[in-house]
Amino acid sequence: MNTATDQAQLRSLLDSWVKANLAKDLEGIIAHYTADVLAFDAILQLQFKGREAYQAHWQKCLEMCAGPSTFEVRELQLETSGELGFGHFLAHCAGTDAEGKTQGCWLRVSQGYRKQQGAWLIAHEHFSVPFDPQSGTALFGLEP
Amino acid sequence: MNTATDQAQLRSLLDSWVKANLAKDLEGIIAHYTADVLAFDAILQLQFKGREAYQAHWQKCLEMCAGPSTFEVRELQLETSGELGFGHFLAHCAGTDAEGKTQGCWLRVSQGYRKQQGAWLIAHEHFSVPFDPQSGTALFGLEP
Repeated sequence: MNTATDQAQLRSLLDSWVKANLAKDLEGIIAHYTADVLAFDAILQLQFKGREAYQAHWQKCLEMCAGPSTFEVRELQLETSGELGFGHFLAHCAGTDAEGKTQGCWLRVSQGYRKQQGAWLIAHEHFSVPFDPQSGTALFGLEP
Repeated sequence: MNTATDQAQLRSLLDSWVKANLAKDLEGIIAHYTADVLAFDAILQLQFKGREAYQAHWQKCLEMCAGPSTFEVRELQLETSGELGFGHFLAHCAGTDAEGKTQGCWLRVSQGYRKQQGAWLIAHEHFSVPFDPQSGTALFGLEP
């Protein structure tokens, strides 16, 4: 079902995507998505349809964290079959805002992958933080 | 890449899963997951590992909404290749609690599917509501 080559190619895609995130390289980040990517991000909107809409959102996110950032991937699991794959992992994101305040939390990330013209791209992405049903607030203090 | 049969089988899996949700049929819901399902739910914990852990969480969720529920699926997209698939949709969930208070909101749902012994099952699931980064509260009022 999984080929070692596809698994290695997906890990390489993710390494490159993480590096672009850390470098706050908007064009570099966006190059990892299909043109028709459908994204559910952790903040602000229900969904983002297409690379252009998602790029505008990513730009806003990068501006929110103007200072140095960290992005740690843990418990990555990938599955592939032919030209399709999906994966999930936990990501610890921390960043420093314009006032020098550092904030961070664990997010859950799910991704759907499609191989197009021999190269894997992210066709679907879902970032989130769970919330407390009593208070309605996001649970930023959870640890894996 | 996609076969019409696999698409139809996945739609049938989801129809059956939605019916079990509406019937608050815990065993029926859980029968749609692989034994090693890895789930990111919208509330309380970062993740649930395996059918048993997820069942205990589902039970808690069903108890929170003791009254009649609705579960509307919108904008479903499915992709399959061989014995693997992924899908995503928006789900409007509303329920009545023990005090007769009805609450509802739109959730984002991503799923990873695996065909095992000829039958599709849900191997990964991610439910969430986005939050407002200023207040840290979940955005229950968003509309598609």
